[in-house]
Amino acid sequence: MEGIELLYERMYNYENETRVEEMTMRVGVLGATGYAGQELVRLLRRHEEVAELVLSSSSVAGQGYEEVYPHWNGQNIGILQDEDVPDLDVLFCALPHGLTASRARGFLDRKIKVIDLGADFRLNSAQVYEEWYKLKHPDVDLLGQAVYGLPELYREKIKGQSLIANPGCYPTATLLALVPLLKEQLLQTEMLVIDAKSGVSGAGRGVSLGNHFSEVNENFKAYGVASHRHTPEIEQELSRAAGQPLTVSFTPHLVPMTRGMLITIYAKVKEGINEADLRNCWLKHYASEQFVHLLPQGTWPQTKFSSGSNHAFLQLTVDRRTGNAVIVSTIDNLMKGAAGQAVQNMNLVVGWPEELGLSGTALWP
Amino acid sequence: MEGIELLYERMYNYENETRVEEMTMRVGVLGATGYAGQELVRLLRRHEEVAELVLSSSSVAGQGYEEVYPHWNGQNIGILQDEDVPDLDVLFCALPHGLTASRARGFLDRKIKVIDLGADFRLNSAQVYEEWYKLKHPDVDLLGQAVYGLPELYREKIKGQSLIANPGCYPTATLLALVPLLKEQLLQTEMLVIDAKSGVSGAGRGVSLGNHFSEVNENFKAYGVASHRHTPEIEQELSRAAGQPLTVSFTPHLVPMTRGMLITIYAKVKEGINEADLRNCWLKHYASEQFVHLLPQGTWPQTKFSSGSNHAFLQLTVDRRTGNAVIVSTIDNLMKGAAGQAVQNMNLVVGWPEELGLSGTALWP
Amino acid sequence: MEGIELLYERMYNYENETRVEEMTMRVGVLGATGYAGQELVRLLRRHEEVAELVLSSSSVAGQGYEEVYPHWNGQNIGILQDEDVPDLDVLFCALPHGLTASRARGFLDRKIKVIDLGADFRLNSAQVYEEWYKLKHPDVDLLGQAVYGLPELYREKIKGQSLIANPGCYPTATLLALVPLLKEQLLQTEMLVIDAKSGVSGAGRGVSLGNHFSEVNENFKAYGVASHRHTPEIEQELSRAAGQPLTVSFTPHLVPMTRGMLITIYAKVKEGINEADLRNCWLKHYASEQFVHLLPQGTWPQTKFSSGSNHAFLQLTVDRRTGNAVIVSTIDNLMKGAAGQAVQNMNLVVGWPEELGLSGTALWP
Amino acid sequence: MEGIELLYERMYNYENETRVEEMTMRVGVLGATGYAGQELVRLLRRHEEVAELVLSSSSVAGQGYEEVYPHWNGQNIGILQDEDVPDLDVLFCALPHGLTASRARGFLDRKIKVIDLGADFRLNSAQVYEEWYKLKHPDVDLLGQAVYGLPELYREKIKGQSLIANPGCYPTATLLALVPLLKEQLLQTEMLVIDAKSGVSGAGRGVSLGNHFSEVNENFKAYGVASHRHTPEIEQELSRAAGQPLTVSFTPHLVPMTRGMLITIYAKVKEGINEADLRNCWLKHYASEQFVHLLPQGTWPQTKFSSGSNHAFLQLTVDRRTGNAVIVSTIDNLMKGAAGQAVQNMNLVVGWPEELGLSGTALWP
Repeated sequence: MEGIELLYERMYNYENETRVEEMTMRVGVLGATGYAGQELVRLLRRHEEVAELVLSSSSVAGQGYEEVYPHWNGQNIGILQDEDVPDLDVLFCALPHGLTASRARGFLDRKIKVIDLGADFRLNSAQVYEEWYKLKHPDVDLLGQAVYGLPELYREKIKGQSLIANPGCYPTATLLALVPLLKEQLLQTEMLVIDAKSGVSGAGRGVSLGNHFSEVNENFKAYGVASHRHTPEIEQELSRAAGQPLTVSFTPHLVPMTRGMLITIYAKVKEGINEADLRNCWLKHYASEQFVHLLPQGTWPQTKFSSGSNHAFLQLTVDRRTGNAVIVSTIDNLMKGAAGQAVQNMNLVVGWPEELGLSGTALWP
Repeated sequence: MEGIELLYERMYNYENETRVEEMTMRVGVLGATGYAGQELVRLLRRHEEVAELVLSSSSVAGQGYEEVYPHWNGQNIGILQDEDVPDLDVLFCALPHGLTASRARGFLDRKIKVIDLGADFRLNSAQVYEEWYKLKHPDVDLLGQAVYGLPELYREKIKGQSLIANPGCYPTATLLALVPLLKEQLLQTEMLVIDAKSGVSGAGRGVSLGNHFSEVNENFKAYGVASHRHTPEIEQELSRAAGQPLTVSFTPHLVPMTRGMLITIYAKVKEGINEADLRNCWLKHYASEQFVHLLPQGTWPQTKFSSGSNHAFLQLTVDRRTGNAVIVSTIDNLMKGAAGQAVQNMNLVVGWPEELGLSGTALWP
Repeated sequence: MEGIELLYERMYNYENETRVEEMTMRVGVLGATGYAGQELVRLLRRHEEVAELVLSSSSVAGQGYEEVYPHWNGQNIGILQDEDVPDLDVLFCALPHGLTASRARGFLDRKIKVIDLGADFRLNSAQVYEEWYKLKHPDVDLLGQAVYGLPELYREKIKGQSLIANPGCYPTATLLALVPLLKEQLLQTEMLVIDAKSGVSGAGRGVSLGNHFSEVNENFKAYGVASHRHTPEIEQELSRAAGQPLTVSFTPHLVPMTRGMLITIYAKVKEGINEADLRNCWLKHYASEQFVHLLPQGTWPQTKFSSGSNHAFLQLTVDRRTGNAVIVSTIDNLMKGAAGQAVQNMNLVVGWPEELGLSGTALWP
Repeated sequence: MEGIELLYERMYNYENETRVEEMTMRVGVLGATGYAGQELVRLLRRHEEVAELVLSSSSVAGQGYEEVYPHWNGQNIGILQDEDVPDLDVLFCALPHGLTASRARGFLDRKIKVIDLGADFRLNSAQVYEEWYKLKHPDVDLLGQAVYGLPELYREKIKGQSLIANPGCYPTATLLALVPLLKEQLLQTEMLVIDAKSGVSGAGRGVSLGNHFSEVNENFKAYGVASHRHTPEIEQELSRAAGQPLTVSFTPHLVPMTRGMLITIYAKVKEGINEADLRNCWLKHYASEQFVHLLPQGTWPQTKFSSGSNHAFLQLTVDRRTGNAVIVSTIDNLMKGAAGQAVQNMNLVVGWPEELGLSGTALWP
């Protein structure tokens, strides 16, 4: 069947029969030709438990995947129309906002678990969604069913769920750093500054003057100042952690590099709290996490530490002169910020080890 | 005479005698082979009033400049020992900190005006200098004589002076944005966040793993967190503007690009102050400035707007949700952040039109 | 008058009356918003003899130039419709092929000298033009009138002419290296290999997947293999130099950088010819040239040597093991490869010093 | 034991006992902190059959691997002195030339299979080695024992061997393209031009002005013209394929990117041979290869197709105008050009499936 392929031959042709029989999961990707979609394909093709993989794309259905991405040469992967997606166990939706919300119910009715890499199910409030995305939410009832898929914060809620809202890249990097500290009431919430920097791949594969090489290379700029759509998502989750509504100053910037994201956060610490308190809080929350790393004191995160991997790196200090905490967090925007985290969510939803298909450190250099 | 050359033939061989006779200024550069030094040479060679140019460098004295920088092929410029620098009208010092302070008095005694691109005369307090630079200041008495050379803020004080402390790159970009607003008491000073991003050329030409291409390319990181030496310089000038001592949270970052600097500033506005007030304050201060540009609302600065030029670009907004001002400033770190500003200072010191030798917009793309 | 401005105030407000009166030349640029057009504007604005500058662009006529390129902020330059271009002394045409050929006669009739940065007048043969550009040449009669504007090779022919075909970037870099050697019969013509590498700006400002940052960055590829349109232009001029028809293997590649072009040429030397002969030939032709530099033995050209300047750099060796010459040539594709050379041509056509408005070395780093 | 670790827990903690027992291979890396060494570590850590991994480095022995490379945070890998390397099954040597040749015999005597990523065993002739590497070969007798480890060309010879000379990056990319065509006598050997382009990581982690970011970024240059040490290695293997001695014009260039290598080859085809003949020759040799891809006609290789993977991509055309073949080959210089191929060799030597630990396509974008 076109677009579906048995992968075990490739992966385990040196293995015994028993092993192969275990691979029975059927997985699909809607929007497989965008950058997040392609990253999902890269991960799912080598995932030890994915037996079949189905790709669809409304724009290039019928073509071979290697016509769109020649580095997939020889892999013989077809691209279906979205409507032709067969019954599956798990479906990743890497679509522009609005499109997944209007289709999710149909998939759920067919017993397909849905992991949405878009924004449709991240915000609890349909009204906030409409305000920021200029679109009436297509399926408000489903909003309540969705779980916000940040495993390090909501692991238990995610397990076994059917509809996962995979977080945005900026929120992921921000929340990993701030949620534990706010939960434990170590930071003041009055002036939270989140200065964010992202590689260009975050803007997707669509062409525009804004990602024209000659305009981006050797250039650095802020964009979406005081208006970026990840703002309400960050505020929703930080407010939940802090136990009170808060707002943030969030400014994204475009770095002349392809992958990677680094967030610099400034916050006042609460009376009597010091650097060790903050560090210990992180340690407590993340000591047993595989994908979140607290770097040794004095070693600050670099985006390349995460490149191509699902790992996040954190560091902080409290400036003795100002008394403010400076907190830095880095991830690969397409991995922990999109496809990698989505696979992590799939593993949780299905009940596999959380790191399956996600082993490996960054590509360096 | 080796290392000295009459430039007028090159520049004005089509001109009349009168013109040539006007060019009589003799100018020198100590530390001419570093990046800031080379940028000075680029500017001074095409400066309409510089008749003679002398270069020195302790490490490669005796070589031709084109042996160090082959793109100067055919220009026949020699490099002297520092000690062999003849009597000049103006001397630019582009040396590591400590070296200029110990020699400046000698030059001044010889009636040579000194423009120091290093840090030796930027801080008013010898004690603060010692604390941050781990060095006893070599000539404390001279500290009081030096003028902080930011023309847009201290133009009148600079004119005719003999010892100019050329500001650091981060301070220049920061002060241009903040000083007018603080002077007019429009911002609160309680939590000033200065998140700074610089190209790699700011770290100079010395080799290290920190500027190895394979470690910097496709990478982004913070460095010098809560410890960068430009911090006291920024605080000194902001405190002077605000009329009260203040501290700042200043975090520099390294962008995978060669040139350019962008500063994102977060500040609370004072009660009753709005975006228009801030914008009008800038307008009032900068309307007649040639090198400082307030971009139209909605157009945010990009580092490339300044590349290779002496122009600075500013923009701001007040986030209606947080009430915080977000202020962005960009310059070319080697131009307005170093050599360009130094030439601007020379023009003021000598009494020429301030823009001489600095005309021209950015190289784009 | 909108779109026209007296520049002398800006450039020479410190000068005497006599000087200002000399500036009387009126110059225009069609296609002023493309990269070559913008580079022309950068050069012409600081050109000592250009009194008035008119810009036009069919797509954004009526807008201010700084709306298209914000780094021109404060310069107050308008953009006309192509049809509204007034009578001028010199007009630069930076248009897609086909458009200049159909309009040039009109401009010439109005006594406007035309410098075409496009391909319409580079090829002597209308048939070859049609074959490679898939377009019937719009004005075959004018072909005979045009002069191929490579000053170092055709200086005397260019002076005073009315219609100049500004060479392509790849041909410029190639011809500077090869024409003298072929003219003097030092190289065999049987297998000439021209392996060319260009920055991305050569492809213009139009958006496409081919210049999407995320697809170009950290990537290198060949393109237009055995089919690039600069091939017949190179062959025409090399055949003329060699005095016999020849063909070349020409392969362009895309380098992940914005500006710059480097050509590596491989050729068999003729019996009895050695490296010194080749070098002496270059020396003889280029010793008095301002923009062509023969680097000292062992120093090989780098594209950055030319960045932002009109300078070309050459080097060669004869490999003692193969007996083949390896020749390297570098230019800035937007300067000596486009706008810089066009200004050099204007200077020749009008009778000014050839280097006017083109002084200055590369921007480094 | 420090520096040695059981990996199965990490890799297969969800697996049954049987699986774990199969992993018994002990593997080491000398020179583990260079770029090729680190890439080996990345590959070997996720290799399904590597039970223990030992790292050594003369410069930083005693430190943790994450002190050198913080992205390995939490992996707890120690670094031994070279002399403390215990008995192993396979040892990779990623050392400067000369060092492996003087130690290899000792390892072989201890029954450790040696895969040398350096140049010491690539050349058959000790005299040629001495001429190009300016060093008397330390163990000439071993030269005859070593097998040149290019699996697609010498697979059968590699199997079971004890001393493998892992090919250089430039030779690998060149030989994959040319060897089959020369073996079948389809190309003339009289003027073979190999124009090569490499990312900066090929020059290693040592710091120098030549890999200083500000000097390399936005820059492109040739280097090692007519003198690069990979020349005799390429000639040795091409001569062997052609059945007669031949020389090549080989010019490497430095591309402003970290990873990747692309080779453009020019050759005359033999009388009566056409493009289809060349293509069919490749097809015949590579149809069943997993890591060598012949792209569809019109699709030309890009270095990014290979990034982070062991895959090579090929394309060619015969220019109908010159009759010359233009052949393009691309690999990741650190993977198929170094560490990836070394692991492929290990798999062959030990008798595992050749692709073990090397699955996965490029990281895109």
